[in-house]
Amino acid sequence: MTIAADISLAQLPLREELRGQSAYGAPQLQVPVQLNTNENPHSPSPALSADLVSKVEELASSLNRYPERDCVELRAELARYISEQTGIEFSRENLWAANGSNEVLQQLLQAFGGPGRKVLGFQPSYSMHPILSAGTQTTFVNCPRNKDFDLDMDAALAAIDQEQPDIIMVTSPNNPTGNITDIQDIRRIISAAPGIVIVDEAYQEFADTPSACELLVEFPTKLVVSRTMSKAFDFAGGRLGYFVAAPAFVEAVMLVRLPYHLSAISQAVAIVALRHSADTLATVAELVSERERVSAALRSYGYQLTESHSNFLFFGVFHDQHAVWQEFLDRGILIRDVGVKGYLRVTIGLAEENDAFLAAAHDIAAKNL
Amino acid sequence: MTIAADISLAQLPLREELRGQSAYGAPQLQVPVQLNTNENPHSPSPALSADLVSKVEELASSLNRYPERDCVELRAELARYISEQTGIEFSRENLWAANGSNEVLQQLLQAFGGPGRKVLGFQPSYSMHPILSAGTQTTFVNCPRNKDFDLDMDAALAAIDQEQPDIIMVTSPNNPTGNITDIQDIRRIISAAPGIVIVDEAYQEFADTPSACELLVEFPTKLVVSRTMSKAFDFAGGRLGYFVAAPAFVEAVMLVRLPYHLSAISQAVAIVALRHSADTLATVAELVSERERVSAALRSYGYQLTESHSNFLFFGVFHDQHAVWQEFLDRGILIRDVGVKGYLRVTIGLAEENDAFLAAAHDIAAKNL
Repeated sequence: MTIAADISLAQLPLREELRGQSAYGAPQLQVPVQLNTNENPHSPSPALSADLVSKVEELASSLNRYPERDCVELRAELARYISEQTGIEFSRENLWAANGSNEVLQQLLQAFGGPGRKVLGFQPSYSMHPILSAGTQTTFVNCPRNKDFDLDMDAALAAIDQEQPDIIMVTSPNNPTGNITDIQDIRRIISAAPGIVIVDEAYQEFADTPSACELLVEFPTKLVVSRTMSKAFDFAGGRLGYFVAAPAFVEAVMLVRLPYHLSAISQAVAIVALRHSADTLATVAELVSERERVSAALRSYGYQLTESHSNFLFFGVFHDQHAVWQEFLDRGILIRDVGVKGYLRVTIGLAEENDAFLAAAHDIAAKNL
Repeated sequence: MTIAADISLAQLPLREELRGQSAYGAPQLQVPVQLNTNENPHSPSPALSADLVSKVEELASSLNRYPERDCVELRAELARYISEQTGIEFSRENLWAANGSNEVLQQLLQAFGGPGRKVLGFQPSYSMHPILSAGTQTTFVNCPRNKDFDLDMDAALAAIDQEQPDIIMVTSPNNPTGNITDIQDIRRIISAAPGIVIVDEAYQEFADTPSACELLVEFPTKLVVSRTMSKAFDFAGGRLGYFVAAPAFVEAVMLVRLPYHLSAISQAVAIVALRHSADTLATVAELVSERERVSAALRSYGYQLTESHSNFLFFGVFHDQHAVWQEFLDRGILIRDVGVKGYLRVTIGLAEENDAFLAAAHDIAAKNL
């Protein structure tokens, strides 16, 4: 029985700014082809799965104890991975981890944002950035991207000068548009920034351009690079995000993190997944090649695309993108309407899923372009 | 190598109120007898461990997918458990879960507290309550407990009248003092409250007094009962907290929760642990009986104790409790100095751990009482 089912949210003393809002999140629908949340479509390898199981077996008898609070072993493993990825040698002191990059970003906003402070972002971009800002009572200011969804550098520098943001967020490769911001432009932004700059590199493994981690030596008091295991790693279910920065940034978020925020199991399974990063990253190469194939096909059907350095494509242009989203869904294909007029986002899936998507896209192009 | 190891926290643009603070958390020391964080000393049963392992085996191949976002199956299992515990029939719509009760409380503070809003608490109590309030920019007002660490009901009602708090937090059984607030007193507090009341029942399984869940039908727009699997459940490593309330409260926290906040594995292992709640709760009965034994012994040595309805004891009175804490540590026994002058807190462990603690306590009593 549901107790108090008749009470409505309007009867509770909710904060005023939350009234009338709805919960964030893509529809979780059961559809044959799910290309809507930028997951890696490959299951973890059998070797990784086997190691996960034995790790949990080893752990089970100590689950009555709180986890190691500072996630030291996990951070060392993340340091090893990011050092390999970037060719720069980082230690665990440079790394911080939490339940998904959302929690990492929320902690940074609690420490460096908050009431009376300001975030500058470049929309359209990851839609959680304004939501996380609101959730931490930080004012979010948008400097819109240009018509090609690139940063308008003149406007960006003018906005930094005028707004004096405490935090600047640059997503590169950008979600939902897939394009990157050149590292020289990121350097100009950091140079101009009066506060800190968070480069959100959730999709960096899919790009062949350098990571902003290369700028950490130059801007140690300003730059934080955030990342996730939800995308390139086939590990969205594990919920593990992290950042790379000067150790002082780790000290800062430790003042606001919830104690024991990462469960013993979350830490352990992420460590196992990182040890299998070679298997996982092999799937990245395949997804990049599929991305090129799907993107060429879409162009040949007459769609316009931004140049993607990620595991998804942003395509249009539609008179009514939501109606087109529904047309895909009616054909059993779930993609994402992120609310940018004229465009939709599709995740690169397995070859057969991409084929199904392309067949629908070919069909739909005739009606909608 | 550590990049930017020479940068100090003082060089970063941290929020002013965080400057000079240190990260919350008990020392995590490797000591023979650990009685400092109120964990259940029993390992999960072999049957539970085996089920955990097979659940993870089943899950591993889908870890590339995001978890089910609304934790529907887990909330149904929690509803079954809490219905059994209280004899009141709740449905999953009455339940919400997150990574530990800290995250549950943080979400409630984001939705119902925040800038310009006020929490009233009764200290000494769970030390995270003021920290979570600060972290969400909510003003924390303390109405001190009396010299026996009970709520001073006249002072409490006067404080409610004067402060008009948006949120009142009552911990029962209280941490670190172990005593309960009578349900009739909780009813008076809720009746007087202008906003919501959170009853933190982290230790309720150790008490034989009724749960505040009994008041939910009477106060559906005001009362939230928070709980955890870290204490009675031998599941601190799994990090699972939850609340029971009208479904509208669940709607409220869904506006502020981070999407996919609970990993697929966290959800799955908590479901398995709940299905084994009978095994787990058998250890609670044993811990309660040990609590009575240890408490009688401590009294016989001359210590003063509050009456505990939890899995720990709060004992004194010491001229310098921190020096006594160190004396226990020197004997290989880690207990907790929570910063209440004259008192220390000890978790009830396994019989042999309690014996070791009592031997030290006997020895120490001669020097310090």
